[in-house]
Amino acid sequence: MHIVDLQQFVLEEEIKLSDLIRKSVDKLNEYIPGEQPSDKNIIKLNTNENPYLPSPDVLDILSMIEISNLNKYPDPNSTLLKKTIADLHSCSVDEVFIGNGSDEILSLSVKAFVEIDEAIGFFDPSYSLYSVLSDIENIRYKLIDLDNDFKFTGQLSKEIKLLLIANPNAPTGLSLTSNMISKIIDNHNGVLLIDEAYADFAGKNYIHLALERNNCLITRSLSKSYSLAGIRCGYCIGNKRLISALNKIKDSYNINYITQEIARVAILDQRTMKANVQAINETKIILRNKLIEFGFKVFDSDANFLWTKPLGISAKKLYELLKQKNILVRYFKDNPKTTDYLRITIGTAPEIFKLIDVINDILGNDLK
Amino acid sequence: MHIVDLQQFVLEEEIKLSDLIRKSVDKLNEYIPGEQPSDKNIIKLNTNENPYLPSPDVLDILSMIEISNLNKYPDPNSTLLKKTIADLHSCSVDEVFIGNGSDEILSLSVKAFVEIDEAIGFFDPSYSLYSVLSDIENIRYKLIDLDNDFKFTGQLSKEIKLLLIANPNAPTGLSLTSNMISKIIDNHNGVLLIDEAYADFAGKNYIHLALERNNCLITRSLSKSYSLAGIRCGYCIGNKRLISALNKIKDSYNINYITQEIARVAILDQRTMKANVQAINETKIILRNKLIEFGFKVFDSDANFLWTKPLGISAKKLYELLKQKNILVRYFKDNPKTTDYLRITIGTAPEIFKLIDVINDILGNDLK
Repeated sequence: MHIVDLQQFVLEEEIKLSDLIRKSVDKLNEYIPGEQPSDKNIIKLNTNENPYLPSPDVLDILSMIEISNLNKYPDPNSTLLKKTIADLHSCSVDEVFIGNGSDEILSLSVKAFVEIDEAIGFFDPSYSLYSVLSDIENIRYKLIDLDNDFKFTGQLSKEIKLLLIANPNAPTGLSLTSNMISKIIDNHNGVLLIDEAYADFAGKNYIHLALERNNCLITRSLSKSYSLAGIRCGYCIGNKRLISALNKIKDSYNINYITQEIARVAILDQRTMKANVQAINETKIILRNKLIEFGFKVFDSDANFLWTKPLGISAKKLYELLKQKNILVRYFKDNPKTTDYLRITIGTAPEIFKLIDVINDILGNDLK
Repeated sequence: MHIVDLQQFVLEEEIKLSDLIRKSVDKLNEYIPGEQPSDKNIIKLNTNENPYLPSPDVLDILSMIEISNLNKYPDPNSTLLKKTIADLHSCSVDEVFIGNGSDEILSLSVKAFVEIDEAIGFFDPSYSLYSVLSDIENIRYKLIDLDNDFKFTGQLSKEIKLLLIANPNAPTGLSLTSNMISKIIDNHNGVLLIDEAYADFAGKNYIHLALERNNCLITRSLSKSYSLAGIRCGYCIGNKRLISALNKIKDSYNINYITQEIARVAILDQRTMKANVQAINETKIILRNKLIEFGFKVFDSDANFLWTKPLGISAKKLYELLKQKNILVRYFKDNPKTTDYLRITIGTAPEIFKLIDVINDILGNDLK
């Protein structure tokens, strides 16, 4: 009887805890972070980080941070950083919003631009965060099917209030044509958010649309082209009323003092960013050509990664064999549309040569 | 007719923009940041920052930040920092949540623990963010009246799902008795979040309740006692199911790499924190005694500020005259319950001596 009482007690306690948590939150799964091995010998080509150093000015500004400034609240408006971004894009500061990573901007956008009975929409596949945000905010989502080559067919649901388009798209690296983007914006009555996390690696961007159209926002990240995933900084350009809506719901001091300082000098140093982008794009061509030589299907990529379908070996098997050889690439096992493919981040040239050698070995020897 | 057409056009454009924004967000006012003058000659006693330097280890760790680590995503679980906090409070890491400032934790708590048709509750007056969060999340709030001496009467609405109690309370600096806290938790069926932003300045805290009770969370901030408002870091202790709910809805990489590093060494250096707290508490007694000499009503404060009702001069007038003499204190003009009072942050001893001299002059001369 004592045991029964205890079980009863545990049960009651559990019921009580679940009563304390919002139902839509309670049923979510906790985020499982991607593989981030601490072993320095592992070649990490799985999370689209930039393998090169950020601007040397970052080191200078870090050495100039005075700890006597850390006891004060940071500028809630990130005024100097916002001015730098506004200058870069020839817009006004009230057309700029800054987030604790562009993830925060995406999260705030769902809350700012979608009523709880409306829907967001995005490509399938696209950045995996979009569906996660929809679950967190308890907002419906509509998947937009792509064709067998991961290209947009032009079919859009009128039900979508906030349309999230990663351009270039992840994990495919494919960009929409300007023509297609114009068609989308002409036929969409809600907010179009173009997630340009990878746009610096592409030849073109759509910042002008965010400044010309009422209903278009562009998000940018410092995590890829600026080699600054560690500081958490992204920004967004758009109509000042939309930007104001984001300002209304952000935490007052969302960007810490050091991130504001580092981001500012990194953005001012366009030369380093562009040199890194060029190095990555050149290495991307080398890998692309080699994978094509191996007979792999390789998609045109405007980003810092390649999307490829191996030949003579399954994507899963190649992922596993590469991992055994200390090379991590990204395999998306959960979506049937992506299980035949791998996403490979472009690392340094030596890392990519090593990858090519290892794949060559796997194809030539290990499979015999 | 041309003018009429233009007006028509402007009107249509406005309607379209307001259609794009969630109604509950559109009607919010944009946050107006407090006075943060850049003039170094101004004595800032208005935002409860700590006037002393953070741990010298912060300077050391800053000089050791390698920019080759900034291109990688930060640890999404803030593992090392979490371990440090768990050790400090003798709890497990899954009883710890870390936020981009404790403001982020408060914001996530409203979303995690309150259904959209439920209510949050907090003292009137208390930390002004609580009502702002309620507006942002479009959740009702119930104000809990305090008596004329800003003391809690013991009356709580059963309708409150998430009870936010700042202890010590802001802007009054008053703490609840242990007895009262026990009564509250025994009679509250929802989540009790005790906001201990100022607890290091008080003799006691209630971390043990967060570890013993299912429905109690304690938030802490590094902005006050640790002199680190600039890095944005707060944390929360509580039952692991509640902590897990917060983890489910946070941005994956909410704490940047540098903040994780700085917070960790600052928390490890309890000695510097406690020395700064002691200095502030000693200066607080000096100011308190002097204000009482002036005939002001001064409340017992367990925080790094004093709540006072001036004599012979209105709070508003004293605020204005101090500002003219380059001393900023906080005057809350919007709540009729607080318009007779000033909140004065305890600065360095020289700053407080200067304040005392200036008040003395104002009372002795300027009012004649």
